[in-house]
Amino acid sequence: MNLSMIRYILGNVLAVEGLLMAPCSIVGYLNGEAEAEIYLIIGVCTLLMGLMLRWKKPENAVFYLKEGCVSTALSWTLMSIMGCLPFVLTGEIPGFVDAFFETVSGFTTTGASVLSDVEALSHVSLFWRSFTHWIGGMGVLVFVLAVVPMNGGSHMNLMRAESPGPTVGKLVPRLRHTARILYLIYVVMTAIQIVLLLAGDMPLFDAVTLSFGTAGTGGFGIKNDSIAGYSAYCQWVITVFMILFGINFNAYYLILLKHVKDAFSIEEVRAYLAIILGAAAVIFFSILDLCEGVFDALTQAFFQVGSVITTTGYSTVDFDLWPTTAKLTMVLLMFIGACAGSTGGGIKVSRFLIVGKTVRKEIGSYIHPKSIKKIRMDGKAIEHEVVRSTNVYFMAYIALYCLFLFLISLEGMDLESSFTAVAATFNNIGPGLGAVGPTCNFGGLTVFSKWVLSFAMLAGRLEIFPMLMVFHPTLWKDGFFSRKKES
Amino acid sequence: MNLSMIRYILGNVLAVEGLLMAPCSIVGYLNGEAEAEIYLIIGVCTLLMGLMLRWKKPENAVFYLKEGCVSTALSWTLMSIMGCLPFVLTGEIPGFVDAFFETVSGFTTTGASVLSDVEALSHVSLFWRSFTHWIGGMGVLVFVLAVVPMNGGSHMNLMRAESPGPTVGKLVPRLRHTARILYLIYVVMTAIQIVLLLAGDMPLFDAVTLSFGTAGTGGFGIKNDSIAGYSAYCQWVITVFMILFGINFNAYYLILLKHVKDAFSIEEVRAYLAIILGAAAVIFFSILDLCEGVFDALTQAFFQVGSVITTTGYSTVDFDLWPTTAKLTMVLLMFIGACAGSTGGGIKVSRFLIVGKTVRKEIGSYIHPKSIKKIRMDGKAIEHEVVRSTNVYFMAYIALYCLFLFLISLEGMDLESSFTAVAATFNNIGPGLGAVGPTCNFGGLTVFSKWVLSFAMLAGRLEIFPMLMVFHPTLWKDGFFSRKKES
Repeated sequence: MNLSMIRYILGNVLAVEGLLMAPCSIVGYLNGEAEAEIYLIIGVCTLLMGLMLRWKKPENAVFYLKEGCVSTALSWTLMSIMGCLPFVLTGEIPGFVDAFFETVSGFTTTGASVLSDVEALSHVSLFWRSFTHWIGGMGVLVFVLAVVPMNGGSHMNLMRAESPGPTVGKLVPRLRHTARILYLIYVVMTAIQIVLLLAGDMPLFDAVTLSFGTAGTGGFGIKNDSIAGYSAYCQWVITVFMILFGINFNAYYLILLKHVKDAFSIEEVRAYLAIILGAAAVIFFSILDLCEGVFDALTQAFFQVGSVITTTGYSTVDFDLWPTTAKLTMVLLMFIGACAGSTGGGIKVSRFLIVGKTVRKEIGSYIHPKSIKKIRMDGKAIEHEVVRSTNVYFMAYIALYCLFLFLISLEGMDLESSFTAVAATFNNIGPGLGAVGPTCNFGGLTVFSKWVLSFAMLAGRLEIFPMLMVFHPTLWKDGFFSRKKES
Repeated sequence: MNLSMIRYILGNVLAVEGLLMAPCSIVGYLNGEAEAEIYLIIGVCTLLMGLMLRWKKPENAVFYLKEGCVSTALSWTLMSIMGCLPFVLTGEIPGFVDAFFETVSGFTTTGASVLSDVEALSHVSLFWRSFTHWIGGMGVLVFVLAVVPMNGGSHMNLMRAESPGPTVGKLVPRLRHTARILYLIYVVMTAIQIVLLLAGDMPLFDAVTLSFGTAGTGGFGIKNDSIAGYSAYCQWVITVFMILFGINFNAYYLILLKHVKDAFSIEEVRAYLAIILGAAAVIFFSILDLCEGVFDALTQAFFQVGSVITTTGYSTVDFDLWPTTAKLTMVLLMFIGACAGSTGGGIKVSRFLIVGKTVRKEIGSYIHPKSIKKIRMDGKAIEHEVVRSTNVYFMAYIALYCLFLFLISLEGMDLESSFTAVAATFNNIGPGLGAVGPTCNFGGLTVFSKWVLSFAMLAGRLEIFPMLMVFHPTLWKDGFFSRKKES
């Protein structure tokens, strides 16, 4: 295990976090808030810690997937620890566990909150809270990749550990270049959303923070009623941008390269949009009676569907009060998630596509046992390895889900609340149903449950294996405790 | 598609069903019930229909897996249609859909009932109802195999379509011989249970019907409170036999061959027993406060765990009233199911073992990417094909589960009831939670939901693919409508 490289990467990550946190204090100073100072101090401290850790460049830059996974898991944990300190020190979220939960929820773009009254927070804290979504949405390590020069292979192993979805491999050859372009798309789209929200008479602060939450598909609101208080125009702008940020960024990259037709023919994107339309239609018809007319029902249906499938978690209505079919549709959407290569979480549409094709092939093989058709996506045959790892991912997902569910059941909430509490955190959504529904929060849970769900959020964001690997016995034997194998 | 062979097999199945149904009327005559005549008449009619269908032996005995699947799906459907006629004609379950649901529930060893007052049924109907469990537990086609001479390959394709679990292939070489031995074990164990129940002062009729329900892991009771009214001794006898019938019958086969040590070292059996112990321990501690002392809590915990993991579905207590952790444990057990090669349903312990090993291997591959260790079970490397088809099975299971769940949600029950209604039928258990809990029944559902759940029970019992295949377009094009490809 190359511990020096891990140290070096952690240093870079912390330095970046410090560089991002310190300027947030400006928001506080502009609003004349005493909390600003704390953000400045902790930001600078984090920066210094980071610089110290990355001072000595490792001689040996050899870096395998296991180091990539461990770096990622540790980076995200450390980042959340440093990121939650301002909440603790300003006294706005006094308990460390609560503040840690909130920050993990921010960086993992979950949006599950322990706060019952977010409006009581200072502007600088609200800003930082939404900003964590924006940072976490694209991935911190991808950012590090975009600015820090590293060995070729190391890039891939880091990116593979952090990036969502099964198809990252293809981006490898010009990875740093690609990472920069992805960030550029991200920044420009966020800016467009801010402008459109401002055009709808939304205050600048609201427009910026809500756009951060949308872009990262996070879901922290700055009002107690989330998005319900804004105009229908603003709700539609947010709906459209939630859905846009849930699309595979490769599509935008293709559009930039003027391959517009290719962008629209990506199977995953088409399936994703089809699911959104289908789910919105089902929900539209089941909630029509509860709404003030067709337009209201359409707005509510599309907003909630867009919010949940992209795992954002904003809400404009308490969908816990909807009829069973509509609620169930929401629960199913929670698991589907957004496209691979987007900022959204969940299991990802492409995984479901691969699995769907596998099952169809299996049924076919009962009829034509000697057929050796390959599964194809976007016209290309899918490698066997991708199919296999997708299947394994599902299995690991289910196993971990049951474990979390069991641990949360000790809390004693009803089954529906327990089930959706895990679904909402593991899939990085935010609100569930029942006791953790859109009008409720996670503040009332026990400390134990908050640790479990914090782990669930991290495991969901990093796609399970990096977080699980940290517990692998070999790693402890060979890596962390004995340093002799380090070379 | 070899339609003549399918006809021939359907004929055999109906003949067997008729031969089994007609003698049931004796139970009715002994109790002086007018309903007996109906069973005699329909039994004889079914026998005659069967004999007519199997009259002309097909010239071409070539029989592929697709024919095996179609025969199995059609056999089970037709068997349920004929089997439900007595309920309709005696007027004890007047609606055809209700009677069909009840009979499918019987043959698939589910035990979900539409009846709120089973004690109102005649003895002959109660007997037939429990007898369907016993018939369905071991599989009707296996029985046909045991008594009807067929081509070698055909046996395998039939057995593969009907038998539970992923490891049937090994039994092939001496298939007819094996099928007979399995039936012998089944009969002897059922007889032992009857004797032990009689020793506990249970009336003969109760002992026989309840043993049928236990042996087939079915779960139809003959009292409105299921097993709650019997003595603790009888409850423990049933508990032990439920667990025994959930064990892979290969274990008993090995014991018969005096390979006792091998029998106890089957990994699946060990895992199965470990899960039972673990789950019973969790439930014991969470219900201890609700029970009358330690012995009562132990009895309740083991009975309910044994009943659900083997997918029997008897109950001695309304576990819907248990604390969340205990309820959740029950829900998780619903999915695990019994061992492959037993009479129990569910996903099967061996599939979970394979999946668990796959996930562990995947985590290992992050650390040692070049390792090419094979997954092993019972000391032997598992063929890649088995791992793959297990994964695909899970995927198809989940997809179908979501579909059923969505269709049932239209019923408008709460999510917990909808979720467990599907779990209880698709896994062939019987009772779920909430509106379909142990003290409730499925009688109040709409006709549509009853069709959906009947299909779910059949799909669960036949392990999905045979039932899905019937909908495959190629089959309709090549097989059912055009006969030209038949050769």
